[in-house]
Amino acid sequence: MEYRVSAPEALHDPLVVPDKLLMGPGPSNAHPRVLEAMSRPILGHLHPETLKIMDDIKAGVRYLFQTHNVATFCLSASGHGGMEAALCNLLEDGDVVLIGHTGHWGDRAADMASRYGADVHTVRAAAGTSLTLAEIRQAIETYRPSVLFLTQGDSSTGVLQGLEGVGPVCRANDCLLIVDTVASLGGTPFHMDRWEVDAVYTGSQKVLGAPPGITPISFSHRAVERYKRRQTKVKVYYWDMFLVGDYWGCFGRPRIYHHTISSTLLYGLREAVALACEESLPSLIARHQDCARRLYDGLQAMGFELYAQERDRLATVTTIRVPTGVDWLQVSQHAMKTYLVEISGGLGPTAGQVFRIGLMGQNATSERVDRVLQVFRDSVKAVKPDFSFRRGASKM
Amino acid sequence: MEYRVSAPEALHDPLVVPDKLLMGPGPSNAHPRVLEAMSRPILGHLHPETLKIMDDIKAGVRYLFQTHNVATFCLSASGHGGMEAALCNLLEDGDVVLIGHTGHWGDRAADMASRYGADVHTVRAAAGTSLTLAEIRQAIETYRPSVLFLTQGDSSTGVLQGLEGVGPVCRANDCLLIVDTVASLGGTPFHMDRWEVDAVYTGSQKVLGAPPGITPISFSHRAVERYKRRQTKVKVYYWDMFLVGDYWGCFGRPRIYHHTISSTLLYGLREAVALACEESLPSLIARHQDCARRLYDGLQAMGFELYAQERDRLATVTTIRVPTGVDWLQVSQHAMKTYLVEISGGLGPTAGQVFRIGLMGQNATSERVDRVLQVFRDSVKAVKPDFSFRRGASKM
Repeated sequence: MEYRVSAPEALHDPLVVPDKLLMGPGPSNAHPRVLEAMSRPILGHLHPETLKIMDDIKAGVRYLFQTHNVATFCLSASGHGGMEAALCNLLEDGDVVLIGHTGHWGDRAADMASRYGADVHTVRAAAGTSLTLAEIRQAIETYRPSVLFLTQGDSSTGVLQGLEGVGPVCRANDCLLIVDTVASLGGTPFHMDRWEVDAVYTGSQKVLGAPPGITPISFSHRAVERYKRRQTKVKVYYWDMFLVGDYWGCFGRPRIYHHTISSTLLYGLREAVALACEESLPSLIARHQDCARRLYDGLQAMGFELYAQERDRLATVTTIRVPTGVDWLQVSQHAMKTYLVEISGGLGPTAGQVFRIGLMGQNATSERVDRVLQVFRDSVKAVKPDFSFRRGASKM
Repeated sequence: MEYRVSAPEALHDPLVVPDKLLMGPGPSNAHPRVLEAMSRPILGHLHPETLKIMDDIKAGVRYLFQTHNVATFCLSASGHGGMEAALCNLLEDGDVVLIGHTGHWGDRAADMASRYGADVHTVRAAAGTSLTLAEIRQAIETYRPSVLFLTQGDSSTGVLQGLEGVGPVCRANDCLLIVDTVASLGGTPFHMDRWEVDAVYTGSQKVLGAPPGITPISFSHRAVERYKRRQTKVKVYYWDMFLVGDYWGCFGRPRIYHHTISSTLLYGLREAVALACEESLPSLIARHQDCARRLYDGLQAMGFELYAQERDRLATVTTIRVPTGVDWLQVSQHAMKTYLVEISGGLGPTAGQVFRIGLMGQNATSERVDRVLQVFRDSVKAVKPDFSFRRGASKM
């Protein structure tokens, strides 16, 4: 039979991949050990070596989340898949879910939850701030949700949501607590068991510096019990906690073939998790927080104003108000074109209002903080030569 | 705060990845050019170089599916994600879906569709055979489905489902046609536009020899129109055709940030698609079919009986009846342990009944056919020394 659609010419050209410094909100640059691992040969999805790597990752992820949960595994999807799976496994039609909104990711979770048939309510923090425990408690008592969703670090606003005390309030109200740590884990403390969190997921391509496409997730025993009491099947086979968990050997049952996992991504994630474990959580977090302070100081010394208020700042993503008269897109493009350095604009509620600088994994070093400060300064200068780099200038 | 969960010892060990010959039903071995590409630096999900690679892949995938569909892109998930997305975008609560069952993948699609709230009916082929056009037509006229699901190549049974003529029957009955080509594309002809297929997806890790984790998919204009007439939102944000399609620049609208795509997997898939385009579909398919015939001949000369009947054999996955008195698992384990060669057992309806040998991508060469025949023979011999390797022996 005749072939009517011909092969594209563009695929004759070689693959072009420049080496950039990724100082946006993620992905971050991967460690050479992670990149090297991903050129290893493909393995089958049930080969013993693959299962061993999965077991190693599982143990490492438990450490990173600070949990003993058996239901700890990874989804073969981007961080969005973590949000899908957390909501999908814990919600049924008509269930009330409360979204704590500190930025874009609250909107995204509300969209997903409503598609799953949940009754969605939102409690919103003021721009650049997080929710207080009192606000959360009041909203829970008002809406009586079966699930509360919070974003620990909202990458759109650079806001850090405090979590201490939230778990016990949820317990007292028969509510499960989902926390998104995609942009925060490893850059700020997180204690799943201590804080009584019921579902958490993180991004592989942020502090961990692994490739995107594989997403660590963990469910508490309370979440597992809720799953067991479901009246209906989880709506998505691909996200079903018990099926994926049985593939990952979480529940003491024989391994099943749930889907074909990407051995390549497992290699990269395994090495990234190993690097984080070698460094240890306290050191990893301290490094990110030290770098964040250095960045804040540098930005403020140049006269820029930070978007997130001081007590609510996320170490991994810093949001900077775009000064009046400065075209953020031109600045970002100048930084990329001239220096191959990524500095991002806003997202969702902060689109057009902020720059976002990420300090994650390999990029959280004082050298790279100084580098991005220099590039940012030069790029603003190039775009707006009369910009006044002094404290308070951006408010004029 | 104290860290109560300590880092696992196992992550201090180096990553171990043996180099195996993957002659099972997938994944297959990747070309060195694919593996090398995956060690390139990470890129951001909206960087121009990333978008260029996505455009290259899109054009290549249109060629591989033989379609001009604008709604052609990839999902950031395994092949199962393709099945999820095809069903999820085209079904709403209560819609009737007809599953043409030729093996395990029909069961899987039925499970997924019922989770999405569809009214699922099944038309089953006899073991080792495909459905005739008359059987399909009759089932459509009986159940009046809005969607028909077929698996072109069912990797559990090694059965090839004929597709010519099915599209027009669907058209005449206002039914959309979904075809799973995960295990078949590139090993047997497929003409999406000519055959009037409305949704198709394939596996990256089969004939293409790319890593798993990224899944090409295409929807016809009829499928897009069906989407536009939906009464309810697609239940899963992550699979939503218009959202993913806008990220992939399919509909002429500005690119959106839908999720963080894995640049690593894009690199691997791009190179794999380029290799397939360079070889051309006719050559690629002929190579697989020639190798399959060589494999059938070799197996039958040794006295093995093929599971799929002659007119319904899939070139990429060959199913071999387990002879009486032979322990398939011991044979498979012997092949892996002694030769690092993968020969698989059955799956779903064929579990325990068949061996499965895959000839896909880099592994579809006469040398590798001869190698797997030799290893298979030696492994059966090792497990059952008195096995009689002669035509008809397995029936005794």
